[in-house]
Amino acid sequence: MSADKPPFEYSCPVPASADTVQLDHGGGGQLAHQLLHEVILPRFANEIAASGHDSAMLDLRNPRVAFTTDSFVVNPLEFPGGDIGKLAVFGTVNDLLMAGALPRHISCSLIIEEGLPLAVLRRILQSMATAAGEAGVTIVTGDTKVVERGHGDGLFINTAGIGERIGEIVIAPQSIRAGDCILLSGDIARHGIAVLAQREGMRFDAPVDSDCASLLPAVSALLDENIEVHCLRDATRGGLATILLELAEISGLCFAIDEERIPVADAVRGACELLGLDPLYIANEGCFVAIVPAAQAERALAVMRAHSVSEQSVLIGQVSEGAPALMLNAATGTRRQLRRLTGQPLPRIC
Amino acid sequence: MSADKPPFEYSCPVPASADTVQLDHGGGGQLAHQLLHEVILPRFANEIAASGHDSAMLDLRNPRVAFTTDSFVVNPLEFPGGDIGKLAVFGTVNDLLMAGALPRHISCSLIIEEGLPLAVLRRILQSMATAAGEAGVTIVTGDTKVVERGHGDGLFINTAGIGERIGEIVIAPQSIRAGDCILLSGDIARHGIAVLAQREGMRFDAPVDSDCASLLPAVSALLDENIEVHCLRDATRGGLATILLELAEISGLCFAIDEERIPVADAVRGACELLGLDPLYIANEGCFVAIVPAAQAERALAVMRAHSVSEQSVLIGQVSEGAPALMLNAATGTRRQLRRLTGQPLPRIC
Repeated sequence: MSADKPPFEYSCPVPASADTVQLDHGGGGQLAHQLLHEVILPRFANEIAASGHDSAMLDLRNPRVAFTTDSFVVNPLEFPGGDIGKLAVFGTVNDLLMAGALPRHISCSLIIEEGLPLAVLRRILQSMATAAGEAGVTIVTGDTKVVERGHGDGLFINTAGIGERIGEIVIAPQSIRAGDCILLSGDIARHGIAVLAQREGMRFDAPVDSDCASLLPAVSALLDENIEVHCLRDATRGGLATILLELAEISGLCFAIDEERIPVADAVRGACELLGLDPLYIANEGCFVAIVPAAQAERALAVMRAHSVSEQSVLIGQVSEGAPALMLNAATGTRRQLRRLTGQPLPRIC
Repeated sequence: MSADKPPFEYSCPVPASADTVQLDHGGGGQLAHQLLHEVILPRFANEIAASGHDSAMLDLRNPRVAFTTDSFVVNPLEFPGGDIGKLAVFGTVNDLLMAGALPRHISCSLIIEEGLPLAVLRRILQSMATAAGEAGVTIVTGDTKVVERGHGDGLFINTAGIGERIGEIVIAPQSIRAGDCILLSGDIARHGIAVLAQREGMRFDAPVDSDCASLLPAVSALLDENIEVHCLRDATRGGLATILLELAEISGLCFAIDEERIPVADAVRGACELLGLDPLYIANEGCFVAIVPAAQAERALAVMRAHSVSEQSVLIGQVSEGAPALMLNAATGTRRQLRRLTGQPLPRIC
């Protein structure tokens, strides 16, 4: 396997060779030193990461920060529209944005399975660097561990992130009020279906790419335009239904959404029908809900639609007084309560 | 396996049952919700973690912070003197301290292999909570993923940490000067030997416990007493020799240490001789070097010796002008240059 080939051919385990990661790459010796200085640091070039210290020393502009972390275990490592590296950077960037914070610095911790081709590792690190550049964050600190063949799964990546909180409004589930509108930034379920299709070797008439993206342009615009955003949440694991249900429970309010307003791409809808999956519960990686006062909903939609990552933004529902629950006004005209799934339809999608 | 039994009997893989972690615990559904709210959050109780937000919102006292991360993949998960949870908290706490920062907040991200007994997970989370309390940090944000049996190794933990930098002195490899003294806080190689012995079922006449510990008391005391600390470094992966060699290279100076001044417990020395291992290259998890001006060395030693974690502190060598290198004045009277190992003697010890 070389770096020139298309990115969708990797499968672990692979034979050990000089072109693969060895157990010694995870020790404290010469190979670990080479991996860090020849493979990792050159891609994350910045003064802080290169300082050779146990911690990155940061001078933030203000002491009000957001702090988050996520580990990524997606299988396969590369899929249409993204890879585990892009996912790891944008996932943490988006979690900071959802708290109304401007992403500034992230960490990168790798757990590599012995035998991972170095070409794959290089591609994924390059993907992380590209994503970090796009989102305006620096990768300032990190760690590398190697586990024996059969004790990992190619590559797991953890990112943690620090963002600077901007403005005085508290963007949080607790700020949601009865009467608020629920806006959705784009069509749903693309990420989960793209990963599943890649893993299972499924083919669609129209290709389905993951929606994996930085939400920075959309969220920055909402804040710059002084929209009074009450809450933001990206619809990742568990999909749109699960994250809305969680917000309903935390806020103690009733959420109602209209099924026919929720955009789903035709190919995604077809795949879901074929597989018996509900797109409302499928993970997204570049799609979020914004909960805003009704009086500002139209202006917020206009602001969101001006950016490509959220150009399909739509109003999908309202928040009201009542027992905390998520109600779906189905396309068939019926109204039913959505609950958490007892099983997960798609494991290992992020 | 129950929570009452002694902690050293766990081995993965184990049969699936209601008492073990299932793949669905890693999804977005009901089981994941239960795991978070019934198993994880109660142990890390604090207002920030319980907010239900994508990020923790922190009000730091000042914007000058240190930021670090580490993933822990130790095998076995529990060993004499510690476990992966204690290691994950103190490892990140110590990395912040080594940068002269007061540890404040940490994250906890779990990658669990399907089949891990919930009793083991509960013990390890409790161990993390206890360690965090001892080190004065709050666990404010986290993440949980579950991978299929055979695609992980029981449990991997990532912690990232934020510390507040105190004082104006820059504690970093770049601050090391010719003439400085090299102080060591305690006897070396206990952690690596303790983990190895547990893994391989070795028995010693005198038990060897990991030195896994928070270095907060020792480092706080050095800073409180206004010792002009030039550099701090914990002697983790690669052991004392590797971390000193790295500091020599970054500072561009020659480090010389005296072998007979370096404390090694008898049982550890015996195990190393039996196994053909050099204690200078074996990992520690509660042992650090402080590099200070010669004029302050005696006072620094007295300050360090007043705390149990560093009561064995000794002066082991000096820094001088010359080609960057680490020289060992051996107990036999010879002098030789120490280099990085080309292989790692002990994989998976942290």
